[in-house]
Amino acid sequence: MATIKDIALKTGLSPTTVSRVINNHPYVDKTKRKKVLEAMEELSYVPNSSARRLRGQRTNTIAVIISRIVNPFFSHLVDAMGEIATEEGYQLVLCDSRLEKKRELQHLELLKTKQVDGVILASLQNKWEDIEPYTRYGPVISCNEYDSKAQMPSILCDQKQGGYMAVKHLIERGHTKIACAGGALRIELTRDRYRGYEEAMMEADLPVQEEFVFSSSYGIEDGKEVFRRIYAMENRPTAIFAGGDEVAAGIISEAKKMKFRIPEDLAVVGFDNQPIAELIDPGITTIDQPMKYMGTRAMQVMLDMVANNREVTYTREILPLELVIREST
Amino acid sequence: MATIKDIALKTGLSPTTVSRVINNHPYVDKTKRKKVLEAMEELSYVPNSSARRLRGQRTNTIAVIISRIVNPFFSHLVDAMGEIATEEGYQLVLCDSRLEKKRELQHLELLKTKQVDGVILASLQNKWEDIEPYTRYGPVISCNEYDSKAQMPSILCDQKQGGYMAVKHLIERGHTKIACAGGALRIELTRDRYRGYEEAMMEADLPVQEEFVFSSSYGIEDGKEVFRRIYAMENRPTAIFAGGDEVAAGIISEAKKMKFRIPEDLAVVGFDNQPIAELIDPGITTIDQPMKYMGTRAMQVMLDMVANNREVTYTREILPLELVIREST
Repeated sequence: MATIKDIALKTGLSPTTVSRVINNHPYVDKTKRKKVLEAMEELSYVPNSSARRLRGQRTNTIAVIISRIVNPFFSHLVDAMGEIATEEGYQLVLCDSRLEKKRELQHLELLKTKQVDGVILASLQNKWEDIEPYTRYGPVISCNEYDSKAQMPSILCDQKQGGYMAVKHLIERGHTKIACAGGALRIELTRDRYRGYEEAMMEADLPVQEEFVFSSSYGIEDGKEVFRRIYAMENRPTAIFAGGDEVAAGIISEAKKMKFRIPEDLAVVGFDNQPIAELIDPGITTIDQPMKYMGTRAMQVMLDMVANNREVTYTREILPLELVIREST
Repeated sequence: MATIKDIALKTGLSPTTVSRVINNHPYVDKTKRKKVLEAMEELSYVPNSSARRLRGQRTNTIAVIISRIVNPFFSHLVDAMGEIATEEGYQLVLCDSRLEKKRELQHLELLKTKQVDGVILASLQNKWEDIEPYTRYGPVISCNEYDSKAQMPSILCDQKQGGYMAVKHLIERGHTKIACAGGALRIELTRDRYRGYEEAMMEADLPVQEEFVFSSSYGIEDGKEVFRRIYAMENRPTAIFAGGDEVAAGIISEAKKMKFRIPEDLAVVGFDNQPIAELIDPGITTIDQPMKYMGTRAMQVMLDMVANNREVTYTREILPLELVIREST
């Protein structure tokens, strides 16, 4: 394989000049630059990035850990991150944990083995004490999910407020028997939404019924299953707050199959404001999350840390949520 | 930073033994292995992957080029690819071209600079003569999109047959004025679907009307725009074949807003069989693409080429498409 020396020999220029051209230094004479570029082409010279990275200890690569890319919330978040990364000359390594702690730690190993410059945790399955050891190898930040004990920068929304807004809206619509279907309760984001639900119920002197609380609901099929369980109840809720628009869409789809009228027989609130919330019939009332902005900010914060070798400091950016009312309530 | 020599000194073992433990060689004495692992921990030894990659010329990383990850077709394809990659210990670099030729070539540079071991083109914006020079740096295959002039392995569906099936179904439902809304006509996949549309129309002695052919339609908003243009026509089509379920969903959503009955006033066929096709009302008749299988096969073919240093040979795997009839027709 051709080396810088070969190009220097061929062009009669010094290796330093050749290197300057390869690394895009300014102030290189135009004729010399042209000569070098031509020689590179002729000799099929390839600047070896692994070698360059090894010297610079930089990979220009950021890992993003999500649960699964088929969840539209994550595909929109990753799309926004990718846009910024590409603009700044970085690559994005897509890592799905599929909600498994072990897979998440395997992905964090990329930092230890210097295959990525930093890790953005958009999904967070492990406890802080298991994540923390990786932070000595490079920046780790969280985005969307969070851990209140974690000493890392986080871009997040006030999920408790989101749950509160959704359920208060249902109470204002006259509902008293309100169900809730979120993710796994070991996840802080899920617990916070649930606390918002509880707070709104307590404020209105309404009881939280244990059988109305569904957990580990993530996608369309989970939503269908939640409806089937509601349908089988003797004393059914008249409204439900779902932790995602796909879960809400699954509930609505199965409810319509069983001739339930939405919202008359069952009112439904989703979360995220994904495109599907507007498309299905009835449109889904939902809590809008600023997915694009959240992804953009997270990548900006990460690249700033990587490019400027910033010390990791504990900061939190809390972004606003908004209730979007449609026909499902 | 600790080196293999430091660990050898600390444990009293030979550097070769230490190296064997680090690289997970079999036949290392258990006690020695334990000693080495403890010393690695104590000395915070990090096996530097960039260094290892440099020697082995392997990055264990595959780039996947798509147009945009927010398109559910691509998120399902990438999800399946990621599953295989993770199983085999590879990372997946997500590259979106956003339909731009220049961005696609920038991503292909990753191969030239040895940052990835191979590239899967799931979207294909450039001509083969512009892609071909990159193939000398590592394997490039296509999946989903294709170029009949390209000398690279391809995993694809018979898109002409897909277009033919969709339009033949509409003709059998009694339609004679049938519109078509696909992507950009410079893309071979789009042209082939269009040729299937033409063939079905010609076979039934029906004219193809130029004003009924819409191009560059990709998402929900494009679908809405297509309907608005149909709505403004004096002589409207009674059916439309859309090149994606999101485009179909956008058409249906806007049509319903204008009080059109689906399928009575406008019958709609989509493409892909995304989850949304089943969820919206009416359900979308569509051409099912084996997204999961296509992604799985593409990654298997790629990893086989990388792991076994296979010569790039020109093969094509053509996967079956299937008509799924729902209420929109």
